[in-house]
Amino acid sequence: MRELLEAVADGSLSPATAEAELMGYVTGDAGRLDAARQQRRGIPEAILAEGKSPEQVVALAETALETTDRALVTRISDRQFDALETSLDETAPDATLERRGSTVRVLSADYEQPSLAATVGIVTAGTVDGPVAAEAEVVCADAGATIDRVDDVGVAALDRTLDQVDRLRDADVLIVAAGREGALPTVIAGLVNTPVIGVPVSSGYGHGGGGEAALAGMLQSCTVLSVVNIDAGFVAGAQAVLIARAIDAGRN
Amino acid sequence: MRELLEAVADGSLSPATAEAELMGYVTGDAGRLDAARQQRRGIPEAILAEGKSPEQVVALAETALETTDRALVTRISDRQFDALETSLDETAPDATLERRGSTVRVLSADYEQPSLAATVGIVTAGTVDGPVAAEAEVVCADAGATIDRVDDVGVAALDRTLDQVDRLRDADVLIVAAGREGALPTVIAGLVNTPVIGVPVSSGYGHGGGGEAALAGMLQSCTVLSVVNIDAGFVAGAQAVLIARAIDAGRN
Amino acid sequence: MRELLEAVADGSLSPATAEAELMGYVTGDAGRLDAARQQRRGIPEAILAEGKSPEQVVALAETALETTDRALVTRISDRQFDALETSLDETAPDATLERRGSTVRVLSADYEQPSLAATVGIVTAGTVDGPVAAEAEVVCADAGATIDRVDDVGVAALDRTLDQVDRLRDADVLIVAAGREGALPTVIAGLVNTPVIGVPVSSGYGHGGGGEAALAGMLQSCTVLSVVNIDAGFVAGAQAVLIARAIDAGRN
Amino acid sequence: MRELLEAVADGSLSPATAEAELMGYVTGDAGRLDAARQQRRGIPEAILAEGKSPEQVVALAETALETTDRALVTRISDRQFDALETSLDETAPDATLERRGSTVRVLSADYEQPSLAATVGIVTAGTVDGPVAAEAEVVCADAGATIDRVDDVGVAALDRTLDQVDRLRDADVLIVAAGREGALPTVIAGLVNTPVIGVPVSSGYGHGGGGEAALAGMLQSCTVLSVVNIDAGFVAGAQAVLIARAIDAGRN
Amino acid sequence: MRELLEAVADGSLSPATAEAELMGYVTGDAGRLDAARQQRRGIPEAILAEGKSPEQVVALAETALETTDRALVTRISDRQFDALETSLDETAPDATLERRGSTVRVLSADYEQPSLAATVGIVTAGTVDGPVAAEAEVVCADAGATIDRVDDVGVAALDRTLDQVDRLRDADVLIVAAGREGALPTVIAGLVNTPVIGVPVSSGYGHGGGGEAALAGMLQSCTVLSVVNIDAGFVAGAQAVLIARAIDAGRN
Amino acid sequence: MRELLEAVADGSLSPATAEAELMGYVTGDAGRLDAARQQRRGIPEAILAEGKSPEQVVALAETALETTDRALVTRISDRQFDALETSLDETAPDATLERRGSTVRVLSADYEQPSLAATVGIVTAGTVDGPVAAEAEVVCADAGATIDRVDDVGVAALDRTLDQVDRLRDADVLIVAAGREGALPTVIAGLVNTPVIGVPVSSGYGHGGGGEAALAGMLQSCTVLSVVNIDAGFVAGAQAVLIARAIDAGRN
Amino acid sequence: MRELLEAVADGSLSPATAEAELMGYVTGDAGRLDAARQQRRGIPEAILAEGKSPEQVVALAETALETTDRALVTRISDRQFDALETSLDETAPDATLERRGSTVRVLSADYEQPSLAATVGIVTAGTVDGPVAAEAEVVCADAGATIDRVDDVGVAALDRTLDQVDRLRDADVLIVAAGREGALPTVIAGLVNTPVIGVPVSSGYGHGGGGEAALAGMLQSCTVLSVVNIDAGFVAGAQAVLIARAIDAGRN
Amino acid sequence: MRELLEAVADGSLSPATAEAELMGYVTGDAGRLDAARQQRRGIPEAILAEGKSPEQVVALAETALETTDRALVTRISDRQFDALETSLDETAPDATLERRGSTVRVLSADYEQPSLAATVGIVTAGTVDGPVAAEAEVVCADAGATIDRVDDVGVAALDRTLDQVDRLRDADVLIVAAGREGALPTVIAGLVNTPVIGVPVSSGYGHGGGGEAALAGMLQSCTVLSVVNIDAGFVAGAQAVLIARAIDAGRN
Repeated sequence: MRELLEAVADGSLSPATAEAELMGYVTGDAGRLDAARQQRRGIPEAILAEGKSPEQVVALAETALETTDRALVTRISDRQFDALETSLDETAPDATLERRGSTVRVLSADYEQPSLAATVGIVTAGTVDGPVAAEAEVVCADAGATIDRVDDVGVAALDRTLDQVDRLRDADVLIVAAGREGALPTVIAGLVNTPVIGVPVSSGYGHGGGGEAALAGMLQSCTVLSVVNIDAGFVAGAQAVLIARAIDAGRN
Repeated sequence: MRELLEAVADGSLSPATAEAELMGYVTGDAGRLDAARQQRRGIPEAILAEGKSPEQVVALAETALETTDRALVTRISDRQFDALETSLDETAPDATLERRGSTVRVLSADYEQPSLAATVGIVTAGTVDGPVAAEAEVVCADAGATIDRVDDVGVAALDRTLDQVDRLRDADVLIVAAGREGALPTVIAGLVNTPVIGVPVSSGYGHGGGGEAALAGMLQSCTVLSVVNIDAGFVAGAQAVLIARAIDAGRN
Repeated sequence: MRELLEAVADGSLSPATAEAELMGYVTGDAGRLDAARQQRRGIPEAILAEGKSPEQVVALAETALETTDRALVTRISDRQFDALETSLDETAPDATLERRGSTVRVLSADYEQPSLAATVGIVTAGTVDGPVAAEAEVVCADAGATIDRVDDVGVAALDRTLDQVDRLRDADVLIVAAGREGALPTVIAGLVNTPVIGVPVSSGYGHGGGGEAALAGMLQSCTVLSVVNIDAGFVAGAQAVLIARAIDAGRN
Repeated sequence: MRELLEAVADGSLSPATAEAELMGYVTGDAGRLDAARQQRRGIPEAILAEGKSPEQVVALAETALETTDRALVTRISDRQFDALETSLDETAPDATLERRGSTVRVLSADYEQPSLAATVGIVTAGTVDGPVAAEAEVVCADAGATIDRVDDVGVAALDRTLDQVDRLRDADVLIVAAGREGALPTVIAGLVNTPVIGVPVSSGYGHGGGGEAALAGMLQSCTVLSVVNIDAGFVAGAQAVLIARAIDAGRN
Repeated sequence: MRELLEAVADGSLSPATAEAELMGYVTGDAGRLDAARQQRRGIPEAILAEGKSPEQVVALAETALETTDRALVTRISDRQFDALETSLDETAPDATLERRGSTVRVLSADYEQPSLAATVGIVTAGTVDGPVAAEAEVVCADAGATIDRVDDVGVAALDRTLDQVDRLRDADVLIVAAGREGALPTVIAGLVNTPVIGVPVSSGYGHGGGGEAALAGMLQSCTVLSVVNIDAGFVAGAQAVLIARAIDAGRN
Repeated sequence: MRELLEAVADGSLSPATAEAELMGYVTGDAGRLDAARQQRRGIPEAILAEGKSPEQVVALAETALETTDRALVTRISDRQFDALETSLDETAPDATLERRGSTVRVLSADYEQPSLAATVGIVTAGTVDGPVAAEAEVVCADAGATIDRVDDVGVAALDRTLDQVDRLRDADVLIVAAGREGALPTVIAGLVNTPVIGVPVSSGYGHGGGGEAALAGMLQSCTVLSVVNIDAGFVAGAQAVLIARAIDAGRN
Repeated sequence: MRELLEAVADGSLSPATAEAELMGYVTGDAGRLDAARQQRRGIPEAILAEGKSPEQVVALAETALETTDRALVTRISDRQFDALETSLDETAPDATLERRGSTVRVLSADYEQPSLAATVGIVTAGTVDGPVAAEAEVVCADAGATIDRVDDVGVAALDRTLDQVDRLRDADVLIVAAGREGALPTVIAGLVNTPVIGVPVSSGYGHGGGGEAALAGMLQSCTVLSVVNIDAGFVAGAQAVLIARAIDAGRN
Repeated sequence: MRELLEAVADGSLSPATAEAELMGYVTGDAGRLDAARQQRRGIPEAILAEGKSPEQVVALAETALETTDRALVTRISDRQFDALETSLDETAPDATLERRGSTVRVLSADYEQPSLAATVGIVTAGTVDGPVAAEAEVVCADAGATIDRVDDVGVAALDRTLDQVDRLRDADVLIVAAGREGALPTVIAGLVNTPVIGVPVSSGYGHGGGGEAALAGMLQSCTVLSVVNIDAGFVAGAQAVLIARAIDAGRN
């Protein structure tokens, strides 16, 4: 404790980092950041940009960067991204920004990328499932898992699916994103002996649109699946990371 | 007209049959029976027993038998069936009763069974889909179609499905009944070039139970399907009959 | 096989077409196109533009054109259409673009239009059902069916409906599009002996709006109907094509 | 006031009747009865038996009988009816009980039946709509309206409907009860120039069952209807009475 | 018939008006107009502008004006209104346009305004219910009923309601528009002996928003109401007109 | 601590009571009972009997009685009540059982009834709301609040409501239970300046039945209300107790 | 009365204020304002700007200001706010405008701020709950309550919550706003003995989004909560004021 | 192959087992059993008894026992269980029946119980969650995982939860079953770094009852969870087995 306070006093530690160390979270302008989540939960607190002002997104991301050397932002808009980029130019010019669809990772120069001895297969039924799968991919890559992305194997042309079964069987855990009737995770889960996490995607119109038919179908699946909310690529990715890390720990 | 009335007068024609001939429908104790439906619509009026008293079911079935030589009753309870059997013993001792699950066909001794040069494939995903498929089967058999029943080929064990593809391709029209997530009609419709009619079945519990997930999934299907209501085996069978008869007409 | 590869080698066959021939589908920038769907399923894979970027729509349409001599795009926006038109000017200047509402057909110069000896009646209840009916019409015309379009015969003025019964009876299969309470397919199906496919349309406001009342009503219909999802004109058209082709086959 | 109290004192008026006269309502064991509703609202307070104990139903009915010479009970069970009959044998042996399905009217010997110079047409689509229509019929008969009951004219056999149009046009107000897709009120309202009140009936199964499709369809109707809740025959009848009485007043 | 055709021949009658006379409806560019609805149904076909293009609105309105001397358009947008005004300047310069909120009435110079000896009370709970009430008001005024508009008497300040009871009792029929919890029609219907038509209004947010709570509450009302769909001011007005006309007929 | 253990050792304290004292909760056969809830939360843990076996209900109630001198059981069935009574005869012959509808209070001989200087008004719209109000009443009486129960003042006969306003204004907090359209809490909350807690009741049938219309209406109320779940009389009572206790504390 | 009228006559009292004094409400251009609500109900009528035109908002706010020295406007848009500011510059240049998010308070120079001896704790789970909490805060501050705002203590990092328990226990009443799964009010209500009012917030996407999961979860809470509608910060604040005032009255 | 057939010929192998070996599934009276599921999918096909006749349950269980030395039956009723027990007495007198709630495991004398070096924590919020957790427990025990069952730690008494955190952290994967608002999986998942699978339980009444609030809340969880359908204890257990086996494989 004394050491920590002396480090703050001599400027080698920022007050925010010290607060994070002591409390587990940091109280900033835009709210309390759960700086200890990576340690406690195994995955970092991602900043859900949707519903926040650009200023709030920037403040939270910069607090995360300062206290954990890294920030993960999901569902960011162009306007929010521009605000973040502009602000980081000044406050953290050495930081790296990685953007993938609407997901952003900011890394400090000191950040050390971990790696996991486990493979997450990320599968989509069609083109429109891409952004949701990308969100999952960013989280898995952030944790250092090997990723095998298999796109566009929807069951309307079943050969597309069957041709990939060997790759699917090689993964340690599978994330399968599908909209419309959402049958793909059910079909795949019938063919492999790995855990499958279904992600309903909000494509489709009319009755059961917005991903509701896909969600209900995955919950009712006649095979074994666990499911996350509609479009919740981040949650699926994070759950896959927790499983992959447990496997990695067994292997090491 | 004169002839008809004279036939009534001399007792060779019942008043009900004469009314059916003249008006197209017959007004009895339990309501008006659409005696002309077979002629006009190509399928007979089926008597939906659910929600009717045994007396009403008997009255309607006997009117149908009297005016069209045949009665088709769906969703009949044991109590309603017993009442029907007892009454027919007296009013129509020559009639034949065929019961299949909760569907009943009554045929007069004079009834001539038609036949159609077309095959309806009736497919189920699992054991619980049986009664719904049976309802469809009775209607198709009633119309004289050839029936190919393929049971228990749900996608959880995809080989069960794929092993039957050749039979499925041989049908002229397919009825596919499935509950839970209802993926089977989608998978099958991706493999054949015949019209597929999906029938959601009210199995399954929890969210999307009661057939709602299966219905929504079939409506959202990424292949081409048309759909009937949950458990509506009769409607699926009747629609298949209309298609089969059009094909039969083309062939003859 | 050898022939195919030699054709690719000497440039008389594009790699994409060869892949389509060998695999059944083609893997491009914007996903896998099911090039074999016409052969296997009897209807081509339509590209649902909604939810895709203009670049993705263009890439998929051009792959379809290259490998199957034809592309069918539904729910295209003006921006997506402009991108397609601009790109085709360069990549396929001989191709023909047919646009009908939000549905587009692209045909190569070599495309041979098939024809079917069967008539699809396409019926609307009111003016707002037009675009949905148009989507069905494009699919049926693409398959070469004869089309009889009967507009604006909603049941509020029942004479409008009854005056067309003879035309309706002449069709081999009927598609009936209706919004609001969606009663028209029920009334028509009571009058004809052809299969009727109901298409609920997302007109109407308040409770049951967005086509939900029409869908539920068609599923509950006291006559025999099969149904597709709200606004799913393409699916209704494709199902009608499958039926029409079976009838055509019987006739020939 | 003085007169009233003296009548109570000498026993020529019961305390309950006096309370009803003074307060408009009577407080008894099973709750407050709105004895003045007939005067104020033009229709009596009906006792909804569903959810009440037999004792509560009896207490409320006897209070109504005592203070307004008449009691109207809806949705009565056999057990509740037996309790009422038994109790009335003792407390009001001169009273008359009229039962129609699950609706009961109790009349004191003094009750004077009013009459209205107006006709209410009560129409059903099918046999299962009977009990709901009966509830409406009891209310209209209670008010003294002429009733024209037209049964079983559902649109599946449209001739049944069209054959009755003249009778339908002769009514001053129409109540139309229909379940399943509930199209009948829409079709009838397109043919007559009288007010039509639609009553959705809770027949039908699957999606939109329990009367929900019929309700949504009547609310979305492309003609002019007003609607009451599912199975609310009493409400439809009472609304028709209010209209019929206004017409009767105009005529007299 | 001969006369009619001669009138067309000599130009004193337009073909459209002749078609309306003969068929009951007119087939134009934007659909079939039910020109006979006023005669048959007692209220004119209103043109629901929502979901139609400006060209379609103009075409339908001009057909109505030509064949029935009047056009009624509901839910018109500014863009549709401008197109109508511009076109009428040319095609019918003598016509009068009356706009009230999003409802428009176009009258030819020859139009004779009818009048009814009956009063429709139109009541709102709050300011936001105004446009829906206005739609009802236009229809009632069009039919010539006397209108008594009572605004802003929501139950949150019950004295506002009670202060108006005498006026409410004087009306022959009441339309009561209310959003949020929609309690006003229930409270009013408990106080008057006239028919009350409830109109749920799509104000309110959160659970039960969009008018759904108000609709459900009116259907569940413990008094006697009939109801129309959310925001369906036109339907409520038209139903009131049918009732008012029946009363007027009784009085004359 | 030592004292506690010695008390257990010499039998003057049961192990369960000691566990409750030390841990705040007691682990028994049927689960952990939150014995400290009264201290921590101000209201005791009520045992929701629904969904539990009679054995589980008995075990939990006896643990509560042993460790807190009192047990509160809600939604108890006759079978569960009988099991409880039988068991208590043996295990706690001095305990008192108070049953009110489906709510039961068991008191040890030592139990000291507290009292609060605050009045809770409990109001019902009609007879069927009684059991839900009774549940609230038991909880408030248990806490020692003065209770003013006002029954059967539903808005269909508004005078019944208005006649009670003075009593309603005298309460410190009001619980208002109503089913069907649930308008009563809204009307009352417009007339008093005390906090009103609305309890939707699951009466009513058809659309919005089961209490859903009442719940949605109370949430949408144009006045100020807070709400509990459908039929949640216990929760409303407990919330009123917390408010009443705060007022009582202010007064003392 | 005479005095009042003389004050109007000599201009010392505006007609609106006199009307408010006499009737309890004031009838203006944009509707009737419930000027007596503060006296009768203990909280002022807030003007819900959503769904009203800027002119209507201005008219109602100015009437409120004139007759009650204060106006409270919720859910105001920028355009409505600008119109209000501009108009007040002219009509009430001495008035003060306080804006907090989308809530506005206008105070006349004469307005006397009351104060309450009670503390309302206002708690949020995350950053996006801020605007809803702010609406509650304005109402409580307006009534003069002490406010303790505790932000960003969502249960994902439970230490954030537990660290604040002492502050939460010190409040007299708690408002807890939370979106997503809405678990925070449940967790807090398990730890304190004050009344907790849950406010579901419309954050979150997919199934249960728009605040529906949070609302359902708060209604189902295994602790004791009362709840207001989704995003209804004003209602929660007003309910807290009524409780706080009762406590304050007890204390004084 | 030859060997297999010879084994059938000499009676050392039953035809069913041979079919299972060759086809992967066995076709019996009550449907096709997926005998290869354990090999292919890592978990056996469980026989869902709900919706099947006792005869069907017996036939499927005996086929499973014959071909895979084991049968797993879920949601079995007393009547189905009795039929199974009676039949096995005759057909497989050496088999062992293990019943836990409504889940049954039948083991042949030859069955070898596997074991996994991994721990599944199974957690319940309250007593009513027990049967759902038991279903999960049977599946995990069947696979040989170590099970740590932690009961009755719902968040209403948060200390109950926090006291078990160390045990929860020691598990390799957690299944958390909770009804009502379903907050427990969210709270636990915030405290541990293992994968958490949430199981909503169908306890609770009113709005969001039947497990819907719990499901929606788990899907909306502000932490990382994956979810299975309401009451789907079997699916949660099977998913945990797949994860546990992957961890076990890593360890060995």
